[in-house]
Amino acid sequence: MRPNAIRQSFAAGKAVINGWLSIACPFTAEIMAHQGYDSITIDLQHGLVGYEVATTMLQAMQASSVTPMVRVPWLDPGAIMKALDAGAYGVICPMINTPKEAEKLVSCVRYPPNGTRSFGPTRVSIASGADYGEHADREVLCFAMIETAQAFANLDAIAATPGLDGLYIGPADLTLGLTGRQYRTGFDREEPEMVAAIKTILEAAHKAGIRACLHNGTPTYAAKAISWGFDLVTISNDVRLLAGAAQASVATARQLIGQLTSVPDLKQAAGGY
Amino acid sequence: MRPNAIRQSFAAGKAVINGWLSIACPFTAEIMAHQGYDSITIDLQHGLVGYEVATTMLQAMQASSVTPMVRVPWLDPGAIMKALDAGAYGVICPMINTPKEAEKLVSCVRYPPNGTRSFGPTRVSIASGADYGEHADREVLCFAMIETAQAFANLDAIAATPGLDGLYIGPADLTLGLTGRQYRTGFDREEPEMVAAIKTILEAAHKAGIRACLHNGTPTYAAKAISWGFDLVTISNDVRLLAGAAQASVATARQLIGQLTSVPDLKQAAGGY
Amino acid sequence: MRPNAIRQSFAAGKAVINGWLSIACPFTAEIMAHQGYDSITIDLQHGLVGYEVATTMLQAMQASSVTPMVRVPWLDPGAIMKALDAGAYGVICPMINTPKEAEKLVSCVRYPPNGTRSFGPTRVSIASGADYGEHADREVLCFAMIETAQAFANLDAIAATPGLDGLYIGPADLTLGLTGRQYRTGFDREEPEMVAAIKTILEAAHKAGIRACLHNGTPTYAAKAISWGFDLVTISNDVRLLAGAAQASVATARQLIGQLTSVPDLKQAAGGY
Amino acid sequence: MRPNAIRQSFAAGKAVINGWLSIACPFTAEIMAHQGYDSITIDLQHGLVGYEVATTMLQAMQASSVTPMVRVPWLDPGAIMKALDAGAYGVICPMINTPKEAEKLVSCVRYPPNGTRSFGPTRVSIASGADYGEHADREVLCFAMIETAQAFANLDAIAATPGLDGLYIGPADLTLGLTGRQYRTGFDREEPEMVAAIKTILEAAHKAGIRACLHNGTPTYAAKAISWGFDLVTISNDVRLLAGAAQASVATARQLIGQLTSVPDLKQAAGGY
Amino acid sequence: MRPNAIRQSFAAGKAVINGWLSIACPFTAEIMAHQGYDSITIDLQHGLVGYEVATTMLQAMQASSVTPMVRVPWLDPGAIMKALDAGAYGVICPMINTPKEAEKLVSCVRYPPNGTRSFGPTRVSIASGADYGEHADREVLCFAMIETAQAFANLDAIAATPGLDGLYIGPADLTLGLTGRQYRTGFDREEPEMVAAIKTILEAAHKAGIRACLHNGTPTYAAKAISWGFDLVTISNDVRLLAGAAQASVATARQLIGQLTSVPDLKQAAGGY
Amino acid sequence: MRPNAIRQSFAAGKAVINGWLSIACPFTAEIMAHQGYDSITIDLQHGLVGYEVATTMLQAMQASSVTPMVRVPWLDPGAIMKALDAGAYGVICPMINTPKEAEKLVSCVRYPPNGTRSFGPTRVSIASGADYGEHADREVLCFAMIETAQAFANLDAIAATPGLDGLYIGPADLTLGLTGRQYRTGFDREEPEMVAAIKTILEAAHKAGIRACLHNGTPTYAAKAISWGFDLVTISNDVRLLAGAAQASVATARQLIGQLTSVPDLKQAAGGY
Repeated sequence: MRPNAIRQSFAAGKAVINGWLSIACPFTAEIMAHQGYDSITIDLQHGLVGYEVATTMLQAMQASSVTPMVRVPWLDPGAIMKALDAGAYGVICPMINTPKEAEKLVSCVRYPPNGTRSFGPTRVSIASGADYGEHADREVLCFAMIETAQAFANLDAIAATPGLDGLYIGPADLTLGLTGRQYRTGFDREEPEMVAAIKTILEAAHKAGIRACLHNGTPTYAAKAISWGFDLVTISNDVRLLAGAAQASVATARQLIGQLTSVPDLKQAAGGY
Repeated sequence: MRPNAIRQSFAAGKAVINGWLSIACPFTAEIMAHQGYDSITIDLQHGLVGYEVATTMLQAMQASSVTPMVRVPWLDPGAIMKALDAGAYGVICPMINTPKEAEKLVSCVRYPPNGTRSFGPTRVSIASGADYGEHADREVLCFAMIETAQAFANLDAIAATPGLDGLYIGPADLTLGLTGRQYRTGFDREEPEMVAAIKTILEAAHKAGIRACLHNGTPTYAAKAISWGFDLVTISNDVRLLAGAAQASVATARQLIGQLTSVPDLKQAAGGY
Repeated sequence: MRPNAIRQSFAAGKAVINGWLSIACPFTAEIMAHQGYDSITIDLQHGLVGYEVATTMLQAMQASSVTPMVRVPWLDPGAIMKALDAGAYGVICPMINTPKEAEKLVSCVRYPPNGTRSFGPTRVSIASGADYGEHADREVLCFAMIETAQAFANLDAIAATPGLDGLYIGPADLTLGLTGRQYRTGFDREEPEMVAAIKTILEAAHKAGIRACLHNGTPTYAAKAISWGFDLVTISNDVRLLAGAAQASVATARQLIGQLTSVPDLKQAAGGY
Repeated sequence: MRPNAIRQSFAAGKAVINGWLSIACPFTAEIMAHQGYDSITIDLQHGLVGYEVATTMLQAMQASSVTPMVRVPWLDPGAIMKALDAGAYGVICPMINTPKEAEKLVSCVRYPPNGTRSFGPTRVSIASGADYGEHADREVLCFAMIETAQAFANLDAIAATPGLDGLYIGPADLTLGLTGRQYRTGFDREEPEMVAAIKTILEAAHKAGIRACLHNGTPTYAAKAISWGFDLVTISNDVRLLAGAAQASVATARQLIGQLTSVPDLKQAAGGY
Repeated sequence: MRPNAIRQSFAAGKAVINGWLSIACPFTAEIMAHQGYDSITIDLQHGLVGYEVATTMLQAMQASSVTPMVRVPWLDPGAIMKALDAGAYGVICPMINTPKEAEKLVSCVRYPPNGTRSFGPTRVSIASGADYGEHADREVLCFAMIETAQAFANLDAIAATPGLDGLYIGPADLTLGLTGRQYRTGFDREEPEMVAAIKTILEAAHKAGIRACLHNGTPTYAAKAISWGFDLVTISNDVRLLAGAAQASVATARQLIGQLTSVPDLKQAAGGY
Repeated sequence: MRPNAIRQSFAAGKAVINGWLSIACPFTAEIMAHQGYDSITIDLQHGLVGYEVATTMLQAMQASSVTPMVRVPWLDPGAIMKALDAGAYGVICPMINTPKEAEKLVSCVRYPPNGTRSFGPTRVSIASGADYGEHADREVLCFAMIETAQAFANLDAIAATPGLDGLYIGPADLTLGLTGRQYRTGFDREEPEMVAAIKTILEAAHKAGIRACLHNGTPTYAAKAISWGFDLVTISNDVRLLAGAAQASVATARQLIGQLTSVPDLKQAAGGY
């Protein structure tokens, strides 16, 4: 089985830079896989991506050196196991709020006797090695998202779940969950209360001996997160990168030729979370 | 955010005529979106439609004036939230049988602190407005289907669920649920006992200050439902409309040329519910 | 090889009623295949249909009794042969203007020494019989569309092409071609000059011992065409049938409830030709 | 409604040979449907197959004589009912561990008052008969997979579930579940302890008056299973058949021309379970 | 019929900024359609885009204000007419080398008696107006690409083709065609000989009373082209914008955290032409 | 640019074993790519494969060591260039009958000044190297199929075409072309007259200093062809391999359990040519 390069980076004390796919297209996946990311996650939750196209995206990234992961739509055993059989080397699961949910998540990702994953690595054993079954439990990563007040209250108990590899912070939801609608939605929080919450999660992960991961909007914030100790940082996503570059390109041209331009404010514009 | 025209009609006391899509195809969606409906619902439950093609159907209806809704396959948070992120302005959820299920449904449709919807309006914020997050809870509609004996017994408690916008009646299932196999399956019930049940649900909705919606097979029955006070009526669906028109066209031609014709009885023929 | 039921009808002196698919969807094809048509044609020219989805449409019609045909986008050997290998039992080719083009068309449809079709009936030999290669030249139908002034001028020479099975009239293009923009576009021509032209083509076909086929908008006109002697009549298409039925359904409902309605005029509305 | 040929074989005391589809493609489904199987199952659990392509696979098998079934990803009412509406004549559900789960499974497959299946046979009533609703409960098959230690402990109670048609053994998971990682993964168990477990399940099914089904890797083991009394045997799948035939073809050619060959060991190679 | 905004800009003396789609995906098309371009072209020649997905891309852009065009793969009547029926408001045709080819191109784009386009605006008449047939010849744009030595030699004769709306320069091919492999491939030519050739084409277009269009890699060069008098400028494409933004994002992050980075040189990297 | 391993084998005097894909599916392509073939060809002519799915098949094979080629549907510049831009390392073109056609074929495959290929290696420059443009003319292979009496008569003149890399024999068509319907259709010819014709083509290729390639049904015939001197041999295809293995599996099981079996004769069954 091809080893999981994210685990190798973690073991080497090297932060992992993760890309994010919200566009349902094998070619965008292939393009992104050649831009220098360590790992790339297909977002089956908020991305406009379903299971079928995700399988072609995993195929399109196979020839590159990036490690593919999947954010699943929900804590759903069928969806989690299908993503793994299709070739995901890691699962990020949203809205893990209790230790019991974290246990269920881990259970879906590990084969008996470690868990309850059903055996049938149909594509992954062809694409990544016929000995997949022997090594999968050691190689595949399992991350629980901490993004609600309830999860925050259960932080240490969740982090202590045997077999869990890390906590993954979704700052947009976490801000909604902890502070209601007091602040703008989105990533790259600067409110002291949110920065403190993010660091609390980071410390809870490390105290439990597992990894801490953060979703970021910009390279700058991602670099700051790494300086705080985060092990894996996601930076933006394909939708925002494409929209931002296109918008900047048009705006620059219009400015140069003196046309007035009233394009929508990109910071406001959504596009994957 | 583009406002929800169904809410505007409701506020103006105007009944809403809803179309129904059971064919998995963006072009049929686009065709239907130009035929005069106020709103159109993509049926992810009994329609032959999955999530991926539904996203292209939402895109294909975007240029029209119809308000798009989705009937989800089941009370599944992942499926509900994905439909909303993709652009649905309303969710119709089948088989809501208890107040607890109704609460869970509402919770999936509203952002914290109103509910537990996860934030990530990837497509809808691009297609319908970058300020989607601010307005979504006010604009998006949430309908619970009443179609079992258990739901009927819990009617008032379900209708009282905070945040629920209306009750939606599936007459085929309701008839099965309330009377077993005593009557034919299908819409446009004429049995006094079923008419009474339908009117009971209508009244329960209005008593609770929410909307009442009915699935109909024909314009005639839909008009009758509106005269009873229904706020939204669905009329037939793409499968039945296409099958019926084709069958009638062939039968007319065969009659005119004197060929015997033994086409199947359309009333019997199924095709979306 | 499953025999071609259109040929059997022709031999029995029975007019063939042909359906028309302009929507790219296997389910609409399957629905249409159960509504009583003798044959159904997938329109790869003006339909919103490409080769790949056409293969699934052919599969979806296989279980029915209709005979599948294809209108190809153009006189293109690759496209014609691919449609046949995929299972089409007949080819309708647009814009055949000269005897040389008609010969090329026939050549693409017949195996050597009758023509130049390349041998590789990959799907059709599985779906319709392993002995396909032996019978295909006798079973597969080949129709040339007559729809320009040039074609009209070459009528008898085209009709005399060995191996050609019939002439197929596209009245919209034929009207444009013969009269410019003097008349409205569309089917079911009533202008004496166009009726005369249509009958001239009919007679040229029969004189040459081949079949005459006409595209119609309504069952009434189709029945009239059969009374004139046409062997195969196409009636409307999936787009128009669906749009017409939906529009009528909404309009009826709005009338019944007293809402003003200003739906677009269906006769004007396009939707497949 | 077209009757269920598997039930007819069962009634006639004839063992059923079942094929297995893990490739997401209507053409592979169509090819497999013409190779002599009695029934064919689309694997939505470990197959690389999602709901949307499964609908085209069901369409592509409709013209053949095979009876189509579906293995669903999980005990999920939405997924089970969608598979049935799309045309599956049987459901195989993985990981049924308790009588309560078995009851829920049966409930999803039967209409009220026998169960809680929602009414809307959109495709199946067109493809298999407009009277589907009347006969479905009698025709559609419902199999529970026994593949964990917990299920094995609950064997008789699960088998006694009213409305359940049979037990289906997944030997790879069952071996993991009963013996941990003591033995190799896979089908065609020869360990006395596993053979005994398989026979125990067979007997439990027959004692309860329902059917016993086994997943096999080879015709030889399948024939042995039939000699033991199994009612339905699955043999290999499309992935393994294709990979095995291709590998053997290349290896033979290389041997004949004297090229050294070091192809991966097929027994090790995975490819659908 | 919705008017062609490119023609309106041309009439108002306003340069048109055109986007370019080489990714086969309706969501990337929808994202791009909201970034401020005046028009967007789907590249069916060098883009990884086929006809079927192009139809969904046209649908996804319909709700925006951009005018959609298509670059067809080749001077192929079937492909050109299908693109127009699907909703393209302009056709850019590669490799027009002679006046005869230019005439054939124009002929495919105009209805009789202006040309030989076959009548059947299946989607476009629904999406853009039922009166499409009356206005199409006036609204639809037809551009010939000048990109070979032969075309350059025939410049004035090509530009004089009645019905042609403009010349479109592909600088990568033009450089290969005029200078062989003397210079690097790509856009934004700075060699005096190539700048002169580009200006020669610009002048030939304007002298003939038609438009001049240039494919550019950067806003800077595009602005310069407008200052020279170009009427329509394409800037980069979706592949390059996404790859460039992603690569810059990763590189910035790696620099900030002090990781060495050796990403491929973007200027070298291809991605749509 | 990743080098072309077929050229390396040729240079090393090693025969190339080529696989063949007629099923439109990235997963079957990925499976086949791991079974030991040197190269694999996607059949866009007789395969049930269109351009769009072919791009995902090329992506799915990228991670393997096989060299991907494409058989194009016809001598169509648009189709040939799109296949190359998508990543094909070789083009096999059917029905090359004259030196002029061979010249046109070569011209489509080479950039100016060697040919007329348009520059825009959108996917291939990302997947196989940003320096693709510099090396493509040297790496990409161009094969002309000899399969008609006309081609056979023009053999030496076709073989002498500058830039052509080899002749590829389609025995089914060649037999039809040379002998009409005297013999069965198919591969692995044993008729002395056909063996002589095949050897004549082999010699013509070698005499002209280019390669000779043969399509075979079995490893045995392929090995014989290599012993004759063929440089590249194709063996069977995915359709036949899957059908044959499935049919043998079912037949074996039925024999073992004593069920009579009357499966169709595989040698008769078609499935890709």
